[in-house]
Amino acid sequence: MNPLILATSLRRPGLLFKHLGQSFTGFRTIQHESSFNMKRVALVSKMTRYEFLKSTYKDLSEGELKKHLDSIRSDYESLHQLHINHYKCVDLIHRILKEHSIETRVVNRFQYNEEIVDWADLIVTAGGDGTYLLAASKIKVKDKPIIGINTDPKRSEGYLCLSKKQFPAENFGEAVKRILEGKFKWKWRHRIRVTMSGFHQNDEPVAIHDQQLLYPEYRFEEHIKEAETHFGEELEQRLHVHEMPPRILPVLALNEVFIGEALSARVSYYEIKRDEEPSMKQKSSGITICTGTGSTSWFFHINHLPIEAVKDILGITKNLTDCDVDLTDQTLMSEVASKFNNSLKFSADEQRMAYTVRDPIVNGVFDAIRQQRGFATRIKINSRMWDGTLVIDGDSSFHFNDGAVATLEMLESDALLTITLD
Amino acid sequence: MNPLILATSLRRPGLLFKHLGQSFTGFRTIQHESSFNMKRVALVSKMTRYEFLKSTYKDLSEGELKKHLDSIRSDYESLHQLHINHYKCVDLIHRILKEHSIETRVVNRFQYNEEIVDWADLIVTAGGDGTYLLAASKIKVKDKPIIGINTDPKRSEGYLCLSKKQFPAENFGEAVKRILEGKFKWKWRHRIRVTMSGFHQNDEPVAIHDQQLLYPEYRFEEHIKEAETHFGEELEQRLHVHEMPPRILPVLALNEVFIGEALSARVSYYEIKRDEEPSMKQKSSGITICTGTGSTSWFFHINHLPIEAVKDILGITKNLTDCDVDLTDQTLMSEVASKFNNSLKFSADEQRMAYTVRDPIVNGVFDAIRQQRGFATRIKINSRMWDGTLVIDGDSSFHFNDGAVATLEMLESDALLTITLD
Repeated sequence: MNPLILATSLRRPGLLFKHLGQSFTGFRTIQHESSFNMKRVALVSKMTRYEFLKSTYKDLSEGELKKHLDSIRSDYESLHQLHINHYKCVDLIHRILKEHSIETRVVNRFQYNEEIVDWADLIVTAGGDGTYLLAASKIKVKDKPIIGINTDPKRSEGYLCLSKKQFPAENFGEAVKRILEGKFKWKWRHRIRVTMSGFHQNDEPVAIHDQQLLYPEYRFEEHIKEAETHFGEELEQRLHVHEMPPRILPVLALNEVFIGEALSARVSYYEIKRDEEPSMKQKSSGITICTGTGSTSWFFHINHLPIEAVKDILGITKNLTDCDVDLTDQTLMSEVASKFNNSLKFSADEQRMAYTVRDPIVNGVFDAIRQQRGFATRIKINSRMWDGTLVIDGDSSFHFNDGAVATLEMLESDALLTITLD
Repeated sequence: MNPLILATSLRRPGLLFKHLGQSFTGFRTIQHESSFNMKRVALVSKMTRYEFLKSTYKDLSEGELKKHLDSIRSDYESLHQLHINHYKCVDLIHRILKEHSIETRVVNRFQYNEEIVDWADLIVTAGGDGTYLLAASKIKVKDKPIIGINTDPKRSEGYLCLSKKQFPAENFGEAVKRILEGKFKWKWRHRIRVTMSGFHQNDEPVAIHDQQLLYPEYRFEEHIKEAETHFGEELEQRLHVHEMPPRILPVLALNEVFIGEALSARVSYYEIKRDEEPSMKQKSSGITICTGTGSTSWFFHINHLPIEAVKDILGITKNLTDCDVDLTDQTLMSEVASKFNNSLKFSADEQRMAYTVRDPIVNGVFDAIRQQRGFATRIKINSRMWDGTLVIDGDSSFHFNDGAVATLEMLESDALLTITLD
């Protein structure tokens, strides 16, 4: 367990696990026999693609479904095989839990709800990261642990699940043993809480959207550079006239929050204020704000550099300086690239957010964006968009039109409790 | 005029300008007095934001509009002033053309159509890049020149317009003089032609889209790595069963084509084949394919590197090698960054396309994308998307769902003719 995790955990005397009969001051001691009283487990099963298609085409016979899948170039055989493999894993996990006389309820995403979360001592997901995120999104309390088993290690990475090498379903027994013996560590994954305020926050975007389509020049129109932005006294006053009471969004972000125009090809316009820095206006393809957990996901894909770019940079530097680096040294090139790319990731329990401006518009008129990427503990974004959207973990989306204000922060009480076995 | 432009122009013996009484072999000689018989000009005026708002809120009095704009934090005064400035420019341009006894029709985007394009010898746009793109999109022939005058140099860059320093509206007379005296150069801006084939190409996406929302795990599901992809014999045969006749899209791309899921926060899945390279599957936030013209636009914003990233790369390299570079040398850092960023741009008349994969998904399961960015002369993309879209110049969009195939190429006959005065 990396020292940071320990450090931040220990920084939480307030966060007690009464039903574990221990506080975080006892954290260092890995032995807490019987400390985690795991009597009831909710086993959340992924819906397989096969199940999904069966439910979508419920009127088709097996043969007709096969024909149809073939026509849309999906392979019935492999989908069906994957379905069978997944449920083999679910059954195996279920059997192992029963062998340890742990009461278990197997549920799919339609059966899984907060009542089941309350009932269970531990949530176990069988599937991939999607299933884990889904199950986690229903956990609102800070003392309800969750672990994930990757039931398709060949085809999915499962960053959120237990190590697919160390703990495939076949080895789930070992995981249970360690948990029951207290041979594990608690780990927190911080989540982002979004509070909406301002006005227009609940507008239906359609009308505005249509107007914009009537006015295509708009997307190239630059906006007057104003010293004043709309946060601060003056805006706050105006807001009070129009605004609805601030509301905390019902979903916490485990990976990231995306804020931008709903349509991919549209330019997003907004003001952003990070911690105590002055507020600034930006035009871009939207902004993502991620947790440490999300730093291996979308955030990573946006910011990671391919080896080619590294080579180009070093080539240019070589020409400008007497820096002598061998551009033909593939090992070096990829080592530099991977060091840079790994530096993008940070620990899931660091209580800070990383933001990235996607495709920032920089030109003579619009200020070069001072910091395209960085960390913050509190971010406030003021929409200037036509058809803006705020999307949590790539799944739940909320309207976010001109005048709406979103405040993003990380509260200790919102952290998700997980278990590490390494 | 950069040598490339000359080179590629000279490579076009077939592209003759009969009505100019000259062929491209006479290209080098700048003098072609009376060679360009500019008798009729269509002056396309931008719709100002003020006009747009007036038409949107036509029932409001001037006072009520002012109130409303204030409530949505727009500044009535400056919008109205910009409106007046713009029309001062339009009138000035119009007067100058009349002074040279050039017949002129002033049109807005609703009045501008192909009949007017046929009528005019030259299209002049008054506005920004948006107005230029709009006017260019209606030019389907290769011998109808267009120039743009930036009527708002303070607030807009106007890459496509004549130099805003050298030729603001006030100096338009000089531009006309040079054109009439033949003291100018022709320049071609290549455009991308998109041909749609395959099946599902006209589906309404909604149904599929809703299905996907019922199945959020999907976005994390990895796809089996298949050696075979779906281009080639076998697909072509299948396609013939379902496909509709290929259709050439009615709009040519002057900047870029975006292909991806319509919704910003969704992962795009597709197959891409560049020239003779093997086809490959990709997951990303979509792909943009740009012209030289577009290489200063979205393509640039996606790929340009901030100084911070350059510093990080050099810092890492410094630690790994004995390359001695001074990271505190701001001038050097920004020189490296700007050299890298400028290397992204290429000339508008190079007959090749540059593609960029946005936020490519790279992990243990999905192949690292071999080339995230590069050039091609022919690109074929096969949609595997739920609610896919193909967007031309950020404006016209077309459905592009699973099974649809888009072929992108640059034909000489699609090039847009422009005039350079530098």
